[in-house]
Amino acid sequence: MILAMNHPKRATISEIAARAGVSKGAVSFALNGRPGVSEETRTRVQAIADELNWKPNRAARALGQSQAGAIGFVLNRSARILGTETFFPQLLSGMQLGLSGSHTALHMMVVGSVEEEMEAYREWWQSRIVDGVIMVDPRVDDPRLEVLEHLGLPAVQVAGHPSQTAAIPAVWADDRAATDTLVRYLHGLGHRRIAYVAGPEELEHTQLRRQEFSASAEALGLDASQSVISGYEADDAARVTRELLARSARPTAVMYDTDVMAMASLRAAQGLGFRVPDELSIVSFEDSLLVQLGNPPITSLTRDTVAFGTLAVKTLLEHIAAETPVPSIEGAQPRLSIRESSGPAPTSS
Amino acid sequence: MILAMNHPKRATISEIAARAGVSKGAVSFALNGRPGVSEETRTRVQAIADELNWKPNRAARALGQSQAGAIGFVLNRSARILGTETFFPQLLSGMQLGLSGSHTALHMMVVGSVEEEMEAYREWWQSRIVDGVIMVDPRVDDPRLEVLEHLGLPAVQVAGHPSQTAAIPAVWADDRAATDTLVRYLHGLGHRRIAYVAGPEELEHTQLRRQEFSASAEALGLDASQSVISGYEADDAARVTRELLARSARPTAVMYDTDVMAMASLRAAQGLGFRVPDELSIVSFEDSLLVQLGNPPITSLTRDTVAFGTLAVKTLLEHIAAETPVPSIEGAQPRLSIRESSGPAPTSS
Repeated sequence: MILAMNHPKRATISEIAARAGVSKGAVSFALNGRPGVSEETRTRVQAIADELNWKPNRAARALGQSQAGAIGFVLNRSARILGTETFFPQLLSGMQLGLSGSHTALHMMVVGSVEEEMEAYREWWQSRIVDGVIMVDPRVDDPRLEVLEHLGLPAVQVAGHPSQTAAIPAVWADDRAATDTLVRYLHGLGHRRIAYVAGPEELEHTQLRRQEFSASAEALGLDASQSVISGYEADDAARVTRELLARSARPTAVMYDTDVMAMASLRAAQGLGFRVPDELSIVSFEDSLLVQLGNPPITSLTRDTVAFGTLAVKTLLEHIAAETPVPSIEGAQPRLSIRESSGPAPTSS
Repeated sequence: MILAMNHPKRATISEIAARAGVSKGAVSFALNGRPGVSEETRTRVQAIADELNWKPNRAARALGQSQAGAIGFVLNRSARILGTETFFPQLLSGMQLGLSGSHTALHMMVVGSVEEEMEAYREWWQSRIVDGVIMVDPRVDDPRLEVLEHLGLPAVQVAGHPSQTAAIPAVWADDRAATDTLVRYLHGLGHRRIAYVAGPEELEHTQLRRQEFSASAEALGLDASQSVISGYEADDAARVTRELLARSARPTAVMYDTDVMAMASLRAAQGLGFRVPDELSIVSFEDSLLVQLGNPPITSLTRDTVAFGTLAVKTLLEHIAAETPVPSIEGAQPRLSIRESSGPAPTSS
C-alpha cells in the first residue's frame, strides 16, 4: 500500500473508472475486450487508459488467462557454479538468445534441494508467474517429472534421454554416442587402461555415460579400464585424479565430464610430474575457451551449448503455444576436437 | 482459458467461494486479512483454501500491494557474452547467492537497446512483476537513471561511481584507484610506453578509467603512453593489439579491461613472435580462471565479483524493504595478483 502511494505514476483501474464515470468492472470489461459495455464506453475508457499510460498488470492478465510473459528456470546447484563452469552460462546465453524477440523474460531461481525446486514449480504455475519451465539435470528416477505432469505445467527438459522421459519432452544429446566416441578415440591411440572421471551419480547423464563406458570398454577388451565418481568442483576432480595416478596399474588416459574437471586434473597431473600427453592423455566431454587455452590445449567433445539452450527455449515456446506436448528433439551431435593433450599410449606402460 | 481448463489443479477464488457459500469478495477479504468478514467466515474460508492447496496468485498479491517475489535484471549486451566473459556469470552467481533464502527469483531479460531496457523497467514495475531492479553498465549521461527515478522503481546500479549517480544508489568499485594501481605497477617495472586497451567508450567506467590512465601517465611523465578503444570481443582486442605492436614506438606493456581481451591479445602477441613478458608485459583489469590458466598466467586485478553481486542484491533488498533510498556502498578494492605475464621493461626498448 505504501509502495503504491509512493509511486503515483501507475494508473489504476479505479482512477480510470473515476475519470470515465463508470464502474471498475466496466473498465475491466472495456480494456479486456469483453462484451457487456457499449462501444462508446469502450472507446472512452481506452482513451483515458492511453492518456494515463495504463498497462494491464499481471493481475488483470492472469485473470484474463493471457500469458505470463516469462518462462521459469530453477537451478538446483550451488549458485557458485554459474561463475566457474562453462555449461550453464552458455546454456543461459542460448536461452536468452531463444527468448530474444519474444518479449519473454527468464524467471530464475537457485535452490538447495529438489523439494524446493518442485515447490517453486507449484508456486510459479499456480500464481501464473511463468508459462512453462526449462528443467535441467535430469536425475535417475526423477521426482520432478511427476510433479510437472501432475501440474500440467508445460516443460522441456535439458538434456534427458527421451526414452526415460516420455511425458516431458526432452531436448537431448546422445550421451552414449559421445562416450563411445571418446573411448574408441583413446583405444585407437593404443590406450588400454582408460579411466572415466564422472560427476555425481544421481544425475541421469552420469548413469548413461557410465553404462556406455563399461559397455564400450568391454566390447574393446579393456579389462582394467574403470569409471570413478567425482564432484564437479575443481578440487574434487584433482584429488580423484591424483588417486588414479597413484595406483600401480595407473591409467594412461583419463576422460573428464567437464572442462573445469579436465583443467584442474591436467594441473594436478603435471604437478605430480606427469608429462601430458607423453605419459598421460587427458580428454574432456566438454569444450570451452578454458580447455582450448590449456597448456597443452585439451582434446574435447565440442558441442554448441548456446544452440542447445536456444533449441530448448524454442521447443518450450512451441509447447506453450500448442498447449499440447511436443516431441523430444535431439540437439546436434558433438564432434571430437583433437588437441595436444592426447596422444599415443606410452610404450612402456 | 484453455490452459486453465487443462489444469484443474489450481484452486481459484471462485471455487473457494462456491464451497464456502460466500461471495468471491468475501473470500478475498478473508484470505488477505482485511476487515469486512466475520472471524468464523475467515476461519472457514482459510480451511477450505488450505484443503484445496490454494495459493495467492500474482493477481491477488498485486492487488494487495504485497511484494512481487522477484527482482529484475536487464542485460543490454549480446546474450552471447554470458557464455564467454567471466564477469556476468560471476555477477549472476553472486546475485543468486544474495537471493538465496529470501525466496526471491531473478526476473531477467536480454535486450538490444537502452530503449528496450527502459521499456522493460516500465512494464515490469507497472505490472508489479518485480520489486526492484539491478541496473548494470552505467553509461555516460545515462538516460535510465531518470526513468528509474521517475518511475520510483527501487534500483541499485552496478557499478556506477556514486558521484555521478546520486539518485540511484550504487554498489561501486573504485575504477580510478584500480587504474592507478596498474599504471604504477608497470611504471615501477621500468615501463615508459604503456598502452591501455579499453572497452566501449559510452560506458561510464571506460571513461573513468581512461581519465585516470591519462592523469596517472601524465603524473609519472609517461608522454608516449596512450589508451585505445576496443570492442569486448576477443577478435577486436587481438586486432587492436596487433595494431599497437606494429607501431614504431610500440608499447612495452599493455593493460586490458577484461580477461577475454587480455587472453586473446596474449595469443595475438605471441603469434607475432613477441615473448611475454621479456618483450611485452600484459596485465588485466579482471582476474579469472581463464587468465590464471594462461601461458604464461596473466597479472590481474583480483576482485570478488561474486561478492559484488551478492552485495548489490542485499543492498537492493534493503532498499525495497526500507522503501527509501539507501546510501551507495563501495565493494572491496581489487588487489593486484602478480603473475608471469609481466616483468621488467626490455632494456633495448
